[in-house]
Amino acid sequence: MTQLTTALTIDFAGCLADRVGDAGLDLATLDDAAPRLRTLTEELEATCDTGLERWRSLPHDPVRAEHLSAVDALVTKLAPGTDDLIVLGIGGSALGNSALQAALNPPTWNLLPREKRGGPRLFVLDNVDPVLVGRTLACVRETDPRFERTVLNVVSKSGETAETAAQFLVARSMLVEALGDAHAERVVAITDTERGTMRSICDAEGYATLPVPGGVGGRFSVLSPVGLFSSAMCGIDVAALLDGAAEMDERCRRPEVRENPAALLAWLLIEHARHGRSQHVLMPYANALDGLADWYRQLWAESLGKRQARDGREIFAGPTPIKALGATDQHSQIQLYREGPADKVIGFVEVERFAEDVAIPGDLDVEPLRYLHGKSLGALLAAEKRATEYALVESRRPHYTIRMPEITAHTIGQFIWLWQMTTAYAGLLLDVNAYDQPAVETGKQATFGLMGREGYEEWAGRVEGALRGG
Amino acid sequence: MTQLTTALTIDFAGCLADRVGDAGLDLATLDDAAPRLRTLTEELEATCDTGLERWRSLPHDPVRAEHLSAVDALVTKLAPGTDDLIVLGIGGSALGNSALQAALNPPTWNLLPREKRGGPRLFVLDNVDPVLVGRTLACVRETDPRFERTVLNVVSKSGETAETAAQFLVARSMLVEALGDAHAERVVAITDTERGTMRSICDAEGYATLPVPGGVGGRFSVLSPVGLFSSAMCGIDVAALLDGAAEMDERCRRPEVRENPAALLAWLLIEHARHGRSQHVLMPYANALDGLADWYRQLWAESLGKRQARDGREIFAGPTPIKALGATDQHSQIQLYREGPADKVIGFVEVERFAEDVAIPGDLDVEPLRYLHGKSLGALLAAEKRATEYALVESRRPHYTIRMPEITAHTIGQFIWLWQMTTAYAGLLLDVNAYDQPAVETGKQATFGLMGREGYEEWAGRVEGALRGG
Repeated sequence: MTQLTTALTIDFAGCLADRVGDAGLDLATLDDAAPRLRTLTEELEATCDTGLERWRSLPHDPVRAEHLSAVDALVTKLAPGTDDLIVLGIGGSALGNSALQAALNPPTWNLLPREKRGGPRLFVLDNVDPVLVGRTLACVRETDPRFERTVLNVVSKSGETAETAAQFLVARSMLVEALGDAHAERVVAITDTERGTMRSICDAEGYATLPVPGGVGGRFSVLSPVGLFSSAMCGIDVAALLDGAAEMDERCRRPEVRENPAALLAWLLIEHARHGRSQHVLMPYANALDGLADWYRQLWAESLGKRQARDGREIFAGPTPIKALGATDQHSQIQLYREGPADKVIGFVEVERFAEDVAIPGDLDVEPLRYLHGKSLGALLAAEKRATEYALVESRRPHYTIRMPEITAHTIGQFIWLWQMTTAYAGLLLDVNAYDQPAVETGKQATFGLMGREGYEEWAGRVEGALRGG
Repeated sequence: MTQLTTALTIDFAGCLADRVGDAGLDLATLDDAAPRLRTLTEELEATCDTGLERWRSLPHDPVRAEHLSAVDALVTKLAPGTDDLIVLGIGGSALGNSALQAALNPPTWNLLPREKRGGPRLFVLDNVDPVLVGRTLACVRETDPRFERTVLNVVSKSGETAETAAQFLVARSMLVEALGDAHAERVVAITDTERGTMRSICDAEGYATLPVPGGVGGRFSVLSPVGLFSSAMCGIDVAALLDGAAEMDERCRRPEVRENPAALLAWLLIEHARHGRSQHVLMPYANALDGLADWYRQLWAESLGKRQARDGREIFAGPTPIKALGATDQHSQIQLYREGPADKVIGFVEVERFAEDVAIPGDLDVEPLRYLHGKSLGALLAAEKRATEYALVESRRPHYTIRMPEITAHTIGQFIWLWQMTTAYAGLLLDVNAYDQPAVETGKQATFGLMGREGYEEWAGRVEGALRGG
């Protein structure tokens, strides 16, 4: 019965006409949509674990057991001798890693003395900004000049993503300079099991590898070794992440939409979008969940932002995901959400119990602050959320709340799975392929051209011509 | 002639019909708008330094000199004996502080050994999340158990903002416990010079104070002591910030729109918004500028998101500011920006010379990566930006580039001023009051009610009633 107390729930009363008037949905239309949603659940059941929906196999055996044992073997070998872990990746190969760390380890992790941390400092290099990369590597070298207690974790299915490849060439070269051939002991690559540039490099250099499983796209890969390895190195209970995901997967197979949180959430958001409310804010009231809001931005934008429907019709679909943080962004974005155009749906995430709470002392006794005495920061944060929800009702702006009993690996696994499944449903509701990203190719090829890669010569001229206005 | 090489420029060819077709503006309409924009420049000149436009006096003497000397006196006294600086604030009392630190100090600042830093570690507590606050204070106490080398910098005009007040009661109490009356030496409050709860506390306790100048709202206060004190403590050249702002202020007084970057940028964005392109992305290609994109989000959202025009008509105005980071978000948001609805304008920020660059070595010689050898990360980042710009042209999506020669206090001062002035123009173009935030009040009062503050009793029942669906 642990599910009863640890399960995420969705409160969507704020999305309905009863509460927000014309900007809300009629509950009867959910009943009308129920048969169609049941059909989509069957459709997802039929394609589950095939093609680009192989991500659905991640929390279930045998895939789960294979991944956990491969990750565990490497972590057991490396963690005790590692003080710094550097993840090299971008997009789906980095967002999940940062998000899991932020959610499940303290915000001060990298500042703690080694003995107070359950693992190495974690640096996720998700860009080729020279100051970011240069300063981070210098910082690691400051305490570990020969990189003997550093692990380089490069995440790239092909090895040809320009940003990751460039980072890797830079960081690897430093390790080689310090350690020679022995540097190979300090590299873990997460890559394709069979082919590609990174695979060849790993085979030639003898690097340890973990799989980017086939049929699992970047933005659906956080619960594969892509996200699990760095998390496990930092002491996160990765089995519990998968348990939470598996439990949510079970709920997302239910035929009744009101019992199926992903079908419900997808319907709410896409139905609002059809009525012109296509800016979808995710606003957790917990700093630890800020990284997961970034992860959601990628999932929602890249999966649903599509020019063509599945049959090729031009539709230019795609709600805009927006990240906010409560209570902080009450002092930044709520003015717009309440008084600006009625084109938004605000999704709150509420944490019912924090890992620790902080009492507000009463030793400074001034009348206007007396109401805070003896309360806690957690209680204040909860009140702020409820007050904001009320303010949105008053302004007739639709909103919903994902309620998370506490932040644990188990609830975070549920949260991730909820959004991955919601995205799958939303793709079907919008009639788009949620698993490709055709528009990203142009930029990649143009970059190759501008950087002088063989075979892309014509791109440089094309870019310069267009940007000269010619 | 330093202006010639350090001045920010705006390239707006990507906003025009010549480059992006129907989604672009006709250059002739800018000429049509020129007389109106000239009138707005005169209007701003007339209201400058009055009412809520007193922020315009910040970079000019005598205000500038007063602030710099007050900040300098405190920094001179406190900096040598300070290892940790904790800023307590939220919204406009925190966003600018974080943004300046991220822009002008290395990303590894808090991890560096004290002797390699030009100032204390900086912690900006911009929320009442109990884990954030609890862990941060514990982390500081770890190295400074009696808070003898810690400064608490509380930023609140009134002292009654619930979040800041709660943080302050918590942190102050820890200092009092450790230091007794001597704790007063470790507190710097930035607050109203004459009235308010924080003013009374400071007078009673003998805290050092710096002014939140009258007529300077939170989101326009970063270049007042609000943002200057923590920056100066961390070694940032705050006089150069103001120099940059003053220089930009001069440019923003020019009657000709093409020579006035704020008038131009405001016209571009508001004109696009009138044509349905009201999602305004700011996407710097530099991790250091990520915090300034957060700062921009507040400025644009809270200033322009207004239900009423200045004459009281209901208009529900307000473009949506969106933050992105290049190249990272090419792997997250660009798919949507290119193929989703044509409702966005993408603003790039391009840095021409980074403080350091990182060469990409050629010691791992595999053919598909050979094109990177001998290049630099800075060159790759520049190519990524140009490639993305090209991809937007191909998709006919409007965009512009703010070109920043390098990231220095001087250029950051310009950047901040550019956006503050652009916001002033945009408020006039939309015919809204850019300086109030009426919709934030409801949430504040409802929070007081839920927290049991005297005088707000009826709010608790009102909130519970509305959220019960009653």
